Amino acid sequence: MTKELVSRLQKGELNIGKIEQYGHGGDVWTAAKAFGGTAESFLDYSANINPLGPPACVIAALQQSGERLLHYPDPGHRKLKSFLAERLSIDEKRLLIGNGAAECMALVLLALKPRTVGIASPCFSEYELLSRQFDAQVVSMIGHAEQDYRVELERLFELVTHAELTFVGHPNNPTGVLYDPEVLMEAASLAEACGHTLVVDEAFIDFLDEDEAQSYSLIRLCETNPHLVILRSLTKFYAIPGLRLGYAAAHSGIIEGMRRKQVTWSVNALALAGGEALFDPMNRAEVEAYEQRTRALIGEERQWLRAQLQELGISTWPSKANFLLCRIEMPWTAARLQRALGERGILIRSCAMYEGLEDGHFRLAVKDRASNEKLVQLLRNVLEQSMQ
Amino acid sequence: MTKELVSRLQKGELNIGKIEQYGHGGDVWTAAKAFGGTAESFLDYSANINPLGPPACVIAALQQSGERLLHYPDPGHRKLKSFLAERLSIDEKRLLIGNGAAECMALVLLALKPRTVGIASPCFSEYELLSRQFDAQVVSMIGHAEQDYRVELERLFELVTHAELTFVGHPNNPTGVLYDPEVLMEAASLAEACGHTLVVDEAFIDFLDEDEAQSYSLIRLCETNPHLVILRSLTKFYAIPGLRLGYAAAHSGIIEGMRRKQVTWSVNALALAGGEALFDPMNRAEVEAYEQRTRALIGEERQWLRAQLQELGISTWPSKANFLLCRIEMPWTAARLQRALGERGILIRSCAMYEGLEDGHFRLAVKDRASNEKLVQLLRNVLEQSMQ
Repeated sequence: MTKELVSRLQKGELNIGKIEQYGHGGDVWTAAKAFGGTAESFLDYSANINPLGPPACVIAALQQSGERLLHYPDPGHRKLKSFLAERLSIDEKRLLIGNGAAECMALVLLALKPRTVGIASPCFSEYELLSRQFDAQVVSMIGHAEQDYRVELERLFELVTHAELTFVGHPNNPTGVLYDPEVLMEAASLAEACGHTLVVDEAFIDFLDEDEAQSYSLIRLCETNPHLVILRSLTKFYAIPGLRLGYAAAHSGIIEGMRRKQVTWSVNALALAGGEALFDPMNRAEVEAYEQRTRALIGEERQWLRAQLQELGISTWPSKANFLLCRIEMPWTAARLQRALGERGILIRSCAMYEGLEDGHFRLAVKDRASNEKLVQLLRNVLEQSMQ
Repeated sequence: MTKELVSRLQKGELNIGKIEQYGHGGDVWTAAKAFGGTAESFLDYSANINPLGPPACVIAALQQSGERLLHYPDPGHRKLKSFLAERLSIDEKRLLIGNGAAECMALVLLALKPRTVGIASPCFSEYELLSRQFDAQVVSMIGHAEQDYRVELERLFELVTHAELTFVGHPNNPTGVLYDPEVLMEAASLAEACGHTLVVDEAFIDFLDEDEAQSYSLIRLCETNPHLVILRSLTKFYAIPGLRLGYAAAHSGIIEGMRRKQVTWSVNALALAGGEALFDPMNRAEVEAYEQRTRALIGEERQWLRAQLQELGISTWPSKANFLLCRIEMPWTAARLQRALGERGILIRSCAMYEGLEDGHFRLAVKDRASNEKLVQLLRNVLEQSMQ
């Protein structure tokens, strides 16, 4: 992304992907303005939210939380932090609760003040935007299609060695791919050796099967490597993006530094109530069943959707998350497809503005079968019409 | 506040006011740990929340907002901002919606990066804590009891001239007093002349009568003075501290700078829903009636409570907000009184740690008559017992 583009994006000026003027999917308000209809009426394939909706215990907790509106939220997030520490078997001192993973990212940058930030492109746009906001110079290495847009290992290690802080999405957004965990462990060791920091964004790791998640996650390594930060989101997997809730795990020194930069009460009372319900040992059986249902659903639907897209001549990449990076061939572009679908009530995420991707790239969420069928049907209609 | 104290406070170590370990009132969780009972059981006089509870339209809007949890909040806060702009007759470009006034404070500091921050003590502790967090040097001028803890005008002007950014609470917390509006206008002009910034924190100004609020508020001046920032809170007057909602009004250049530093989605979907209900023109009549009821109630109860406290030998200051700064005489201290009341289920805010105040200072919220009677009765018992 050029400096000028970033500056225009930050100013809220419409850039290449005008629907993504705030840098993200899920902006049904801008879509409604551009394509007609109301914000509520869109079938939103541009944001990656669990189609099952929140677990019943979260909904119940929120319904019973009216009284909590009348009081300041606990500035120490004590109940949620203690539940989470127990669930993860991680010392509370190594955990920070945040207003979404996005706040945790900002706090890492504010706490550590890196002068240079490394990113492995294409990747989540906030890494670059936040780094520039907090005055860091951004260095990027670009992955290529042949390696499913993973950055080559040598380049990744170069990044970690060169940049004071490096962000890696794992699984990565918008590609959905993972690195070999040993590669990231090596990168974490390199960061430690250089006195640098590796931030592994595991916002989507809950979508992996439990065994797989355990072997791919670096969260346990936080206990021995003080130069590693893990970020997790609770809003995608548990379908509560409106609540804003995420967390960071890291050495207690980093966590303490982040806490000092956190605005008091930034996590509101209902977000805390929702998180407490999720990690309350009393709700464990229910939440575990929900987690299994989610993984089964997403696994099955991801496979089905990939097969359907292939039939339509749309390329996809082997995602481990609840979204698919796709590419449509010329004369189509992501922007044109976004408009064609948008005018018909489905919003997709153009990925043309990602460094390393092209005009034909877009991202689709993986939803339930009924929605996915609707999407595929509409895609088919739109593509067939254009051939006539 | 000494550097060491601030550092201990930031580390969450218990300082002089151990119940205020996070720097604020309303921490019923720490109180429960210190005094026994459950967090929910306290009658909380340490946080200043409208005793009427939220307006009915806000509660209804939240109850109908379940669907909004499933979507990212509007990162541009478009609907709320447009309602607010209309209500205040201020251009949207001059408004920023924040996660409480606290986030707005942090964003002003992040956007303007003042090297020196001036504070008029005693004042809201976040001014100093946030300024230090963001690496500014803090300069303070201290008001004295004879002037109701207002800083002398010459000192105030000195502060604005010397510090790159100055915070003034108006009405001030924890004293509840106002400056002559012409004095603040003069201070704002001085800030403009020096290329400095005056931040007027009007978090409690809604508690003034409407005419009075109009003559004391500096919000209109934002349109002509690009060196003035007004902060407002919606959580105290409208009794939604759990939701986190506030806003800033300033020159569009400052607002744009703040927006660039704001973490995406920091204001969650339910906070937006609550704010939209508050400022929806459809709800104007209901909200206006609520505002009038609130002002009448607080005015009457504040007067009643002051009279009762005077009878008990407790000094108070002439507050315009929904709280009273009080002082109890030796051998009592605020800490001792806090403990005596805390063990009996009422939490008060010690103000002994404020620069310029003393061991006997504490702050009481102004609540409804039933609660206030309970407080006064308990105070009487506690004071009488100690005389026996």
